[in-house]
Amino acid sequence: MSSYGLYRVTEPVGVLPQQAERLDADPVARPDEVVVDVECLNLDAASFRQLREQYGDGDQVRAAVVDIVRRRGKMHNPVTGSGGMLLGTVREAGPDSPLGLKPGDRIATLVSLTLTPLRITDDLVKWDGTTEQVPCAGTAILFGRSIAAVLPDDMPDHLALSVLDVCGAPALTDRVVRRREQPSVLVLGGGGKSGSLSLAAARRAGAKRLVALVPTGHEAAAVRDAGLADEVVIADARDPVAVAERVGDQVDVTIVCVDVPGCEHGAVLATADGGTIVFFSMATSFAAAALGAEGLAADVEMIIGNGYVPGHAAFALDLLRTEPGVRRLFEARERQTSGA
Amino acid sequence: MSSYGLYRVTEPVGVLPQQAERLDADPVARPDEVVVDVECLNLDAASFRQLREQYGDGDQVRAAVVDIVRRRGKMHNPVTGSGGMLLGTVREAGPDSPLGLKPGDRIATLVSLTLTPLRITDDLVKWDGTTEQVPCAGTAILFGRSIAAVLPDDMPDHLALSVLDVCGAPALTDRVVRRREQPSVLVLGGGGKSGSLSLAAARRAGAKRLVALVPTGHEAAAVRDAGLADEVVIADARDPVAVAERVGDQVDVTIVCVDVPGCEHGAVLATADGGTIVFFSMATSFAAAALGAEGLAADVEMIIGNGYVPGHAAFALDLLRTEPGVRRLFEARERQTSGA
Repeated sequence: MSSYGLYRVTEPVGVLPQQAERLDADPVARPDEVVVDVECLNLDAASFRQLREQYGDGDQVRAAVVDIVRRRGKMHNPVTGSGGMLLGTVREAGPDSPLGLKPGDRIATLVSLTLTPLRITDDLVKWDGTTEQVPCAGTAILFGRSIAAVLPDDMPDHLALSVLDVCGAPALTDRVVRRREQPSVLVLGGGGKSGSLSLAAARRAGAKRLVALVPTGHEAAAVRDAGLADEVVIADARDPVAVAERVGDQVDVTIVCVDVPGCEHGAVLATADGGTIVFFSMATSFAAAALGAEGLAADVEMIIGNGYVPGHAAFALDLLRTEPGVRRLFEARERQTSGA
Repeated sequence: MSSYGLYRVTEPVGVLPQQAERLDADPVARPDEVVVDVECLNLDAASFRQLREQYGDGDQVRAAVVDIVRRRGKMHNPVTGSGGMLLGTVREAGPDSPLGLKPGDRIATLVSLTLTPLRITDDLVKWDGTTEQVPCAGTAILFGRSIAAVLPDDMPDHLALSVLDVCGAPALTDRVVRRREQPSVLVLGGGGKSGSLSLAAARRAGAKRLVALVPTGHEAAAVRDAGLADEVVIADARDPVAVAERVGDQVDVTIVCVDVPGCEHGAVLATADGGTIVFFSMATSFAAAALGAEGLAADVEMIIGNGYVPGHAAFALDLLRTEPGVRRLFEARERQTSGA
């Protein structure tokens, strides 16, 4: 159990780091740990929104974040329960660390800040409180069982982070699609980040008929231009009847990447008996999926999208490098976001 | 789409029956429908509790149920959103119905009352408003795509219903366990209804090491006496560290049948990389499962327990008939319930 960081939990003793009220963030590596010099925190969007609403965007929000990290030994927003991730450089890797990192590696953590021991040493003086990106001097600890990706040197950080943020989806899509012989695959939300990567992954894994469902004509044009799907259909993913009608013949595998509630029944209706649905959207309701499939007498296997699949970061970055259509969609999305 | 009963939806047109405000409950069978003479409604526990709290247990609650069914054409509690199931006898089966039912069959519906067209003709005069079981004269409609089980004549109704209520769990357990060669299997909540059936199903499907986790010494003794597991361990399923420690070596397959929130992380910790977790508990949180596995860097496949697997009802009833240990646990549970 030590590889999960249990010995870093100081209150209450005996729970996992994510459940803990307080962690010991002392920057000295135990044999299987890694110490990271932090460069930047990326706060979870929900956490940042809550903090701004409560504290505004000047000294107060800065003091609030510093205070949370001082009290808890981690950036675990007590209201939203969420965290984010961080960028930094490896300072020291213990001799028994299985993560394959060495001093000097620039990395991004892919496990939540809610379970990452963190110490801030500069009082966040470089942060003006207006951005989710928080320039930060300090240290963090990675456990034996943790996930971090070395940042590639052939693309901008922000693009790499954007990919790493959703890298579980294409890796799991690859695994599920490869289990079948030339399956038909539907991606709900095929124009988004996880959706476009999942389309590219499904194609590589041997999907025969590949359908992207998107909400608008504008997104449909972008996915068509990117050449990521055989068919692009427009529907509101929350309308099960519309989804089923637009998709037509039921597919073998459905990947749900639409981050709004209420997409479960459409996914079930679009999927053939014996098929598989993978839900990556955090807006998925367990009960709506379970009761929906039962109510529709649908013999479909429904998988909770686990954000961790071994090799997921390298796989997703490789898709971005080698699939110009995916890269175009990501860059267009970044332009939109920065222009907003 | 017609087999899902779309043409029975009168308001708003174009949604699925479960989402509908109002269904047409006219007791005339379309070619793929079945008309049922209703004998008894079994209200969902949450629905019944809410109705009693709002209306008490006399004429008022009776009038409330009659009114809901008259307005909506189904027993769909507008506050809880839940329904229940019903018992009845097949009056008429359309020539194209795929359900294999014939007039005179006594059946239980295994899809929710929230999507079942229902008409009440006796104003529920035989119900005193104090029980979830509601004696009822009236009619219901089964669609082409629906699920109903013929009630067996070799066991009491209440015992059969108790099994049918959870029959998806053993059937899906069977399927998941059979995919592996002599896997180790853990059932969280192995002393309950779905848990004990899942243990029996896992044994039949070839589980080698079979572990039941239960919360109390009393339940542990009952599961041991029933002979359903190789090992019975006692722990609070909501305490991930305790679960992992008591179970010891990680298992290949974990089945979660504990109907309380917070069992996701224990299931993840107890399961080996490459393993599978099936969540049957409706208290499962999608986000806790997805983020928990990611935070623990666990390469586990997590499946949402679909209540429908073809043949599930017959499979579960057969387990009860042929596994004396399962039957003893069910009967002991019934005695407890009726004595409470």
